[in-house]
Formats: sequence, C-alpha cells, structure tokens
Amino acid sequence: MTKRFTFEILAKDSETLARAGRLTTAHGEIETPVFMPVGTQGTVKALTQTMLEQMDARIILGNTYHLYLRPTHRLINQLGGLHKFISWSRAMLTDSGGFQVFSLGPLRKLSEEGVSFQSHIDGSRHFLTPEKSMEIQAALGSDIIMCFDECTPYPATREQAQQSLELTSRWARRSKEHLGKLHADADEAEKAGLRIVNPTQALFGINQGSMFFDLRQQSLDELLEIGFDGYAIGGLSVGEDKQIMYSVMHHITPKLPVEKPRYLMGVGTPEDMIEAVAQGVDMFDCVLPTRNARNGNLFTSRGRINIKNARYKNEDRPIDESCKCEACRVYSRAYIRHLYMSGEILASVLSSLHNVSFYLDTMERIRQAIWLGAFKEFHQSFLEDLSRGQE
Amino acid sequence: MTKRFTFEILAKDSETLARAGRLTTAHGEIETPVFMPVGTQGTVKALTQTMLEQMDARIILGNTYHLYLRPTHRLINQLGGLHKFISWSRAMLTDSGGFQVFSLGPLRKLSEEGVSFQSHIDGSRHFLTPEKSMEIQAALGSDIIMCFDECTPYPATREQAQQSLELTSRWARRSKEHLGKLHADADEAEKAGLRIVNPTQALFGINQGSMFFDLRQQSLDELLEIGFDGYAIGGLSVGEDKQIMYSVMHHITPKLPVEKPRYLMGVGTPEDMIEAVAQGVDMFDCVLPTRNARNGNLFTSRGRINIKNARYKNEDRPIDESCKCEACRVYSRAYIRHLYMSGEILASVLSSLHNVSFYLDTMERIRQAIWLGAFKEFHQSFLEDLSRGQE
Repeated sequence: MTKRFTFEILAKDSETLARAGRLTTAHGEIETPVFMPVGTQGTVKALTQTMLEQMDARIILGNTYHLYLRPTHRLINQLGGLHKFISWSRAMLTDSGGFQVFSLGPLRKLSEEGVSFQSHIDGSRHFLTPEKSMEIQAALGSDIIMCFDECTPYPATREQAQQSLELTSRWARRSKEHLGKLHADADEAEKAGLRIVNPTQALFGINQGSMFFDLRQQSLDELLEIGFDGYAIGGLSVGEDKQIMYSVMHHITPKLPVEKPRYLMGVGTPEDMIEAVAQGVDMFDCVLPTRNARNGNLFTSRGRINIKNARYKNEDRPIDESCKCEACRVYSRAYIRHLYMSGEILASVLSSLHNVSFYLDTMERIRQAIWLGAFKEFHQSFLEDLSRGQE
Repeated sequence: MTKRFTFEILAKDSETLARAGRLTTAHGEIETPVFMPVGTQGTVKALTQTMLEQMDARIILGNTYHLYLRPTHRLINQLGGLHKFISWSRAMLTDSGGFQVFSLGPLRKLSEEGVSFQSHIDGSRHFLTPEKSMEIQAALGSDIIMCFDECTPYPATREQAQQSLELTSRWARRSKEHLGKLHADADEAEKAGLRIVNPTQALFGINQGSMFFDLRQQSLDELLEIGFDGYAIGGLSVGEDKQIMYSVMHHITPKLPVEKPRYLMGVGTPEDMIEAVAQGVDMFDCVLPTRNARNGNLFTSRGRINIKNARYKNEDRPIDESCKCEACRVYSRAYIRHLYMSGEILASVLSSLHNVSFYLDTMERIRQAIWLGAFKEFHQSFLEDLSRGQE
C-alpha cells in the first residue's frame, strides 16, 4: 500500500493526439486509455467482483453520495475501507458526490460553504462541503478521488457558468488543502472520525465552464495554479447536443497538461470514447453499458441490438460473434432473449457481463492500435463496423 | 448420448434405510442422495450455468408448464433441446406440468382426458394430457421425465384421494405408452411435430394417495404393475403438518422398490431432506434455497439468518464460516446486507449462490457419512448444529 500514484505515457499516436500510458496505484497498474465500470453503491450492477476480474477490469468507480448515505462512509471506514468492504483488490476511483447532489434539484441548496440537501432515501438533511467530501473519500480509501465541484447545469448563461466555475475553483483549493491535512496529520483524521486506510490517494481537479471555450480555459488555468495529480473534464454529457460536447472536448482536452492523466467524466458511447481518445483523453466512466444491459440494449461490434426484439427469438448465435465474454462464449441470443421475456435475473447478469466486456475490450483494442501506430485506421474501421449493423 | 439410464446402490447405512448410489445418464453421472436445484424457466434463478458447475450441481430441474408456454417446447426442440438451449451439458429432470396446472385453481378444468387451463401469462387456452406432457418433455429432451399426474389437493376426503390416485395411475399408463411410441417411432415423433433429441430419457412414476397409508400403497401397487425407471413421492409438502408429511414419508418410502431411484418431490428444508434420506430417499428438489435467497433468508450450518437484520450491519465475517462457496470465500455479511438494503441484483446472485451451495454441500456431507457408515452420527450432529443458532 505504499506505492505512489504515478502516470507514464508509453506510446503516442503520430496522426492524432491519442496516447497509451500506465497509471500505477497502491492497488495495481492500469493501462490507459481505460474504461472504468461504474459501481455506484459498491457494486457494478449485476456483476460479481470475480466476473469483473475475469474481464480484466483494472479500476472501478464508487459513488461518494450513495455510499455516504448507505451504508455510510463511517461503517465502510470502520470495516477497513471500500476495497475491503466490497472485496475488490484492484484500483478504485470515487467521485466527489457533487454530481449526484446537483441532480437532486429542489432537494438541495447551494452556498459558498457547500450544499445542503435531503437524502433521496429517507429525506434526512445533510450538508456536503469540499472538506466533508474529502473526509468521506478518505474514509472510503479509493485510489483516485475527485475534488468537490459544482456540475454547471445546462444550459447556463455565460455569467452563471463563470460564477459556477469560479466556485468550483475555490472548492478545488479547499479540497486539496483539506485532503493534505487529513493525509499528513493523524489527529486531523481522527478529529474527522476516520482512519486513513489509503495514504496514496491521488486527487483530480475538475474542469468546468459549460460550453464557453474561454471559461473552460479560465477554469483550467485556475486548477493548474492549484496543481492536481490528474485533470477531469466535467459538465459534459449533461443534455447538450453531441456536436457541442465534441467541440468543447476538442477545444479543452489538448490544453490539459500532457504529463498528467485526463479523465472525461460520464462519457459515453463507444463512438464518443474513441473520439475522445483521439483528442488525448485517458480515462472514461459511464453507466451506459450496465444501465442499457438491464433494458436488453446490447452493444456489439456491428452496432446496438435490443435483444427483446422478436427477430432474435430463435437465433442460435451469440450476442456478438467477435466477443469472448462468458455470455457470448456460452449462451445464444435466443436464450438471453427468453431470459428477458421471462423477467429472469440472469438476463441482467449476462447482458451486463457482455456490455461491460464490450467496453473493456474496445479499450483494449484502442490501446493495441495506439501501440501499433494504427489508431487512425482502427478508429475508421471500428466506426464502419458499428454502422454496418446486423446482417 | 447413447448411455442408458441406470441406477446402482453403492453403500447402505446399517442403522437407517439411508443408501448412497449413482445415477448414470446421457449427461453424466450423479451421486445420490442428490439435491436438484430448480431451474423453472430454464435458469436456476440468479445463477449462471458456470456457477452451478463450479458448485458441482450434477442435475437441475426444468419446468414443463413454464417452458411449454414460453419460449415453447417447439422453439427449444427446434434449437436442439433444453440442454443446448440453456447451455447445460449435465443432467436435467423435467416435471410433468401437472403440479403447476393444478396450482392454477379456477383457471383449470379436469377431465379423464386431461386438464384444460388458461395461461398465467396471456390467458390463452391450453389442454394438457399425459400424451401432450410426454411430447413436451420429449421435445425438451431432459434425462429424467415425470408422468403426468394429478397432485391431489390437501385436505382431501378418502374418496377424493382414491379417485385422484386412480386417475394418476391411468395417466401414468398412458404416459409410459405414449413416450414409448415417441421414442420407438420417428414417424410418431414427427406427427407430434418434434424431433427426439434424447432417446435415453428415463420415466418416473409418481405416487399419490394424499395422507392415507392404504391409498399410498394402492397407488404404489398400480405404478409397480406398469413399471418405471424410478418412483417419486408426490402430493407432500402441500400444506399438511410436518408430522403428517413425515408419517406418510416414513410409511411409503421403504415400500418403493429398493433397486430403483426414489424421488421426494418439492421437499424441503435441510432437516426434511436428512429425515427422508434416513428413510431411503435418493433425490430431492425444492425452490426454498433460491426463493429464500431472494428474500435475504440464508441457510447456514448454525440455522437460518435473515441478512437484512440490523445485527449483521457491521459483521466482517462470511454468511457461514464453514462454507466454501464464492459468496462465503469472498464477501462479508456486512457487504451482502448492504446489497440487500440497496436493492442490488448482486444480493440475489450471491445469496442464491450460497443457499444452493449449502444444499449441495449438505448432500455431499450426507453421502460421505453414508459411505463412512456414520450417517446416524452425522444426522444428529447436523441437527444439533442447526439448532445451536448464531453465537
């Protein structure tokens, strides 16, 4: 547990800004670009940790807001931290709780100090601040933790976006300062009622600024002045048109420090991720593969299918012939469709297994392409295959 | 696929009627006494087939009524049979559909010919006869199939019970005759719109007679006259007191042919199963382990626990310290409780995995005890442990 957090770039594409690298954490190494499956409540929905290991997930997400409310960060800390609590020995990243709190809408109230909100579970009142978010994430002990930020709502006026990003900058400074104290001073941690379970935690800053290029730059400048272990792009995929998202991403990604990991939060489809890799993004998370799986919406190398469709009723072939996951190695479309139509839990298990595998495999193929200097060709053929659809 | 169905007795307990044996099917060998996990709709709820193999389940159940309605036995037959459809290479048993149809209550109507009923899914009308049940089970291709019987309702008058068992006997004869034709004559199968996917299917007769000892004997005599590959005790665990169930079981089990496998249908708790093994029962099925699992009710060697109870909130130990299943090897009670309280699918997966493992392990321990000539001691210490409860 004494390994420091580091990031190395190991290969660069010559035709795009894509790069392949390696994150080192106290809980193992992670090849980038990487997709991080989302384990909101301490579980990547419907999957066992063994399944995640078998599909070679190297890092998964946990959710500060959810885990704080239930089972509480105190309980998890008392039981040795989030890795131990959920029996996951590889790396974890936790978000700051900001995104969820802001999603609560009328249930929350914002001030310079922080955000007061009511629990979606029992209506109880809570107050989340940058300091509190750091305490929760220190209690959880995840390897990469995020500054407490305001995820600027979309659409926002220029003035709203600027006020919001500036608040995020002030909160970023408070986050860094407080985490430093917690890690450096056992008394400080004890005062907060927690035990430091992972002293190697890396802290990432979050770039905001809505869809305004110059505000994105202002946000970045302010974060750089504070200095973080990595930089995330937040406030995208919040309802804007895809072209707007791409334009902001294209604008700001190349300006993030080259030597630090770059994380595009909450994005997206396989197409989005490839597009972002081409701009130099290293890390992704998204609920799409697991959420879609539970609705029967499955990703394949030939585009998405909805397995509930009657046309798959007697198809004796796997979801995706080119996929090596357990769901594709063992079961047919006809069987998985039957499981959905019958409301069986195994439908969610097998479909989540496939969709998460598909995301992880896509990233593996992206990394290989970068290593081989063939990323641009891969990008093109990947999109062509997707658009070809099912024969 | 040409291995004939056989049963050998390999060890007998000297102090009870317990025996250990081996069933041989076209889909592998099964050590008895055996617990058969229930896979109603072609899936043992919440478990993958790989998990079932890893916990060494040798035979699982499928449900004729459910599979006939959805996805239909015709589709399954067209796709190569139930083994292939669900990707399970080990043995399977299907029930006759009788029990489910009779559970439909007012939706069904009984005649000498068979039972007409309305689907619980879409209200469509169907007519199930002994011949139809054989055709469905032949289409599914399970290794052991059951005669179409009337599961006598409880309570029943002596007259009702006698009429019912006699109908069951006539249906048993029709079942055997029709299955014989289907297996012997490809034209007969083709006429029924199916392809014989497993010509080695064994057929079991079902003993009825409600709680009347002499009627149980009458039923058995009539079944023996027809002759079956194995004999099941039906019509128990249908609402009667446990003492009544035990008395019927104690009375009739030792009278079943010694050289044939004996199957106690739908029973029961671990205590029930041990009690029945002592009377010479070889085969069991029950939905308890999977159904209870989904409600957080977990079996342990020290009695049952409900994992939702607040006392397990911070228990950093497995469900059952003496269990070697993945849920117990990897996860804590605190984590599994958290999964329940959060409504996570993984709660059902891990709990089903544990409960089914517990049933299979209990059977494994029973078999070992019989082999070692220590069944009576095992029986006693098993019940003592159960009643000891959690410390």
